[in-house]
Amino acid sequence: MATQEDEPGQPPALTSLSLAATAECITPKEQIITPFDVSGGTDEQGKLLAIDYDKIVGKFGATRIDKALLEKFERVTGQRPHRFLRRGIVFSHRELDTILDRYEKGLPFFLYTGRGPSSDSMHVGHAVPFEFTKWLQDVFDAPLVIMLTDDEKFLHSPKLKVEDVKRFTRQNAKDIIAVGFDLKKTFIFADFDYVKGALYENAIQIARRTTVSQIKGTFGFDDSNNIGEMVFPAIQSATAFATSFPHIFGSNKKKAASVPCLIPCAIDQDPYFRQCRDNAKQLGYIKPSLLHAVFLPALQGPGSKMSASVPDSGIFLNDTAKDIQKKVNKYAFSGGQDTVEKHRELGGRTKDDVPFQYLTFFMEDDEALEKIRADYEKGDLLTGELKKICIQELQSYVKGFQDRRTKVTDEVVDESMRERKLVFRGNFNPPEGDDEKRKRVKALKAELDKLEAEIKPSA
Amino acid sequence: MATQEDEPGQPPALTSLSLAATAECITPKEQIITPFDVSGGTDEQGKLLAIDYDKIVGKFGATRIDKALLEKFERVTGQRPHRFLRRGIVFSHRELDTILDRYEKGLPFFLYTGRGPSSDSMHVGHAVPFEFTKWLQDVFDAPLVIMLTDDEKFLHSPKLKVEDVKRFTRQNAKDIIAVGFDLKKTFIFADFDYVKGALYENAIQIARRTTVSQIKGTFGFDDSNNIGEMVFPAIQSATAFATSFPHIFGSNKKKAASVPCLIPCAIDQDPYFRQCRDNAKQLGYIKPSLLHAVFLPALQGPGSKMSASVPDSGIFLNDTAKDIQKKVNKYAFSGGQDTVEKHRELGGRTKDDVPFQYLTFFMEDDEALEKIRADYEKGDLLTGELKKICIQELQSYVKGFQDRRTKVTDEVVDESMRERKLVFRGNFNPPEGDDEKRKRVKALKAELDKLEAEIKPSA
Repeated sequence: MATQEDEPGQPPALTSLSLAATAECITPKEQIITPFDVSGGTDEQGKLLAIDYDKIVGKFGATRIDKALLEKFERVTGQRPHRFLRRGIVFSHRELDTILDRYEKGLPFFLYTGRGPSSDSMHVGHAVPFEFTKWLQDVFDAPLVIMLTDDEKFLHSPKLKVEDVKRFTRQNAKDIIAVGFDLKKTFIFADFDYVKGALYENAIQIARRTTVSQIKGTFGFDDSNNIGEMVFPAIQSATAFATSFPHIFGSNKKKAASVPCLIPCAIDQDPYFRQCRDNAKQLGYIKPSLLHAVFLPALQGPGSKMSASVPDSGIFLNDTAKDIQKKVNKYAFSGGQDTVEKHRELGGRTKDDVPFQYLTFFMEDDEALEKIRADYEKGDLLTGELKKICIQELQSYVKGFQDRRTKVTDEVVDESMRERKLVFRGNFNPPEGDDEKRKRVKALKAELDKLEAEIKPSA
Repeated sequence: MATQEDEPGQPPALTSLSLAATAECITPKEQIITPFDVSGGTDEQGKLLAIDYDKIVGKFGATRIDKALLEKFERVTGQRPHRFLRRGIVFSHRELDTILDRYEKGLPFFLYTGRGPSSDSMHVGHAVPFEFTKWLQDVFDAPLVIMLTDDEKFLHSPKLKVEDVKRFTRQNAKDIIAVGFDLKKTFIFADFDYVKGALYENAIQIARRTTVSQIKGTFGFDDSNNIGEMVFPAIQSATAFATSFPHIFGSNKKKAASVPCLIPCAIDQDPYFRQCRDNAKQLGYIKPSLLHAVFLPALQGPGSKMSASVPDSGIFLNDTAKDIQKKVNKYAFSGGQDTVEKHRELGGRTKDDVPFQYLTFFMEDDEALEKIRADYEKGDLLTGELKKICIQELQSYVKGFQDRRTKVTDEVVDESMRERKLVFRGNFNPPEGDDEKRKRVKALKAELDKLEAEIKPSA
């Protein structure tokens, strides 16, 4: 429901700290949200409109996260909801409650998120779903799979070479690890390595049940799209099933089929999983649950999202403190008034103000944030002062990230991408125990004996 | 070119022993040849017409095999062309000459054929391309990959389960091995096992260069087809490139990219490889060469092909001697006359006669075959007598097959499907030599040490 104070075209998460606050476009023409196109549309004057998240939720058939669900979350997990949940940045879901029920009963489930590797460094917008996923992993002590869709990125980028996307993948994996995941319970994989065996079989199962018509309807494709783009949704869907990961959930398919997943992602990824949910039952699987996040707007303002290929659109995780200062001061769209006098008199508009919006994403302290909002709207806080706070917050966030990033060696990446057992709560498939190792020792010795017998003694 | 004696609607291979003989339909309406639909079309009276192979060659842009090419084949290989080549059963090609040139220069190439596993037993029609491929492997001493497209069969059969196609695959692999391939130079694989890594990467490369429009045009698909069917051609194409098999051709991609392949197949598979040839250059690969075979007609007569799902349409490789006798006597369409008297007077029509056509496929002796033809056409040989010869020939062929089949154990199947190096002429990537083995020994010992250090001493 829209409230009276709402300004048109503002993501609800950014208009206030209230979860219930929403927004409506006056003339919302052609808002498009697909994994390939995100735009709030334009008004009759051609002005870019902010994304109407309520409209998406309605269109997609998802459910707004309400107070009752957050209370259940806190009751079941004993944890205060993450600031993204408190502030409506993670604003919508599908069957989160069933996952909470499972958690309460001690039944296993897993987390699944991912990324299309598109440049050598991610931006802070990319970090949002990963930050949130890391928090979920800590709260639930659940195994996590992170899919790097190098194949998809290649299919959608006619100019990229396989080597390019593989390089992006490697770099992005380091960035993701630097978010702070517990690697004992995290499996990161690139499609070019891992699309095979159990995952491929699930993808083919889904592909047989998905017509070209359906994909066209869901993703806006046509006959000029390539056949790889057409089939990729089946691969992204297959990852939502535990049977695609025998090294984590065991090779007993029936047992693995009983383990559902929870997918934290940006709202544009929902179309993949709507189809996936439609197919789950036919395949004998449980529908995945979802948690949807809004987009971190570009520096240029609401109605857009940061783009990895446009350096000035966002703050990158490898930006220096100086870069951040410069970008925020130069590009960040302000909701302040033209002159100090006017600002003192009328106050700033936090709903349009990118630095303020970034603070809602990155500043942990609710009270401090609320004070900034009030002071800015009253005109007590000037645009330059607000930008300064935002710059400090971003610099601190990015520095923390970069410090962790330097510790991510190639060996750490290799290990995180190795097919192996994971350690997690209610682990029904414990990691390599001694019995397992003894079996392997036996096999290795047999192979050694055979080889050594075959090798001619060297001169 | 059609000759005067040609009867309408006869596959050229079956109308005479001459390679040049061809046929034309009087009113050839809607002949369809795709991997999913093979029909010579019908005339104005609705009568099933034989397949017009010349028309296919023209439409597909392939080249008829002529005398000069066969002479080159014999000169270069020192082998008399196989009866399928002599009799126009293998009747058309794409760039066979470049493969012959490579053979002459001692340059490597590989053979590639395959099958969509569709029932527990193959029929003799399925054996035709495999028989021919085995002969090519012997002549060329070339490595061979055999693709079992269990994924494609699953995608095109809404009622089959994965377990069904996997069972078919296993049974068909046994049948294929029983054809007599040299397993030291043969790698058999099922897509559900082997679509991954290098092959998947090549498939995605091809998929990016192939639009939905192109696939629709080539295969007659529409938006009601599933997305797996749409992408599968990329997988079948990727197998034509040596870089898809690092265990055979090494992991040096540049080196492997210089190894082209020759694909012996039934003509209906050509559409896959036309697209593959179009893509090869862009990928830095050499276009695959092809050899096309006609179809072995069903017992019911020309214009059809044997179907694995219609037992009475053909002779199966697990039929008993009695089954064969019964099927030929009961179902084989005859070109003989209605009465003995009329037959003696007018003679039989070998071009319509299924038993005679089968003899052209399976009887090795050209002179004996020519005598049968002449005697039958003169009326000296009766239908029953011709059928008897055909029955004996088929029984002998099938018995030889079955004897070899009993020796194909599960271990043999496992070994033939194991990713391993192969032994072949001009092998630039010799099978596990001592150096390789020493390297492996070193790696094994390192893993052993690590594991043994980790294992707690047992009580």
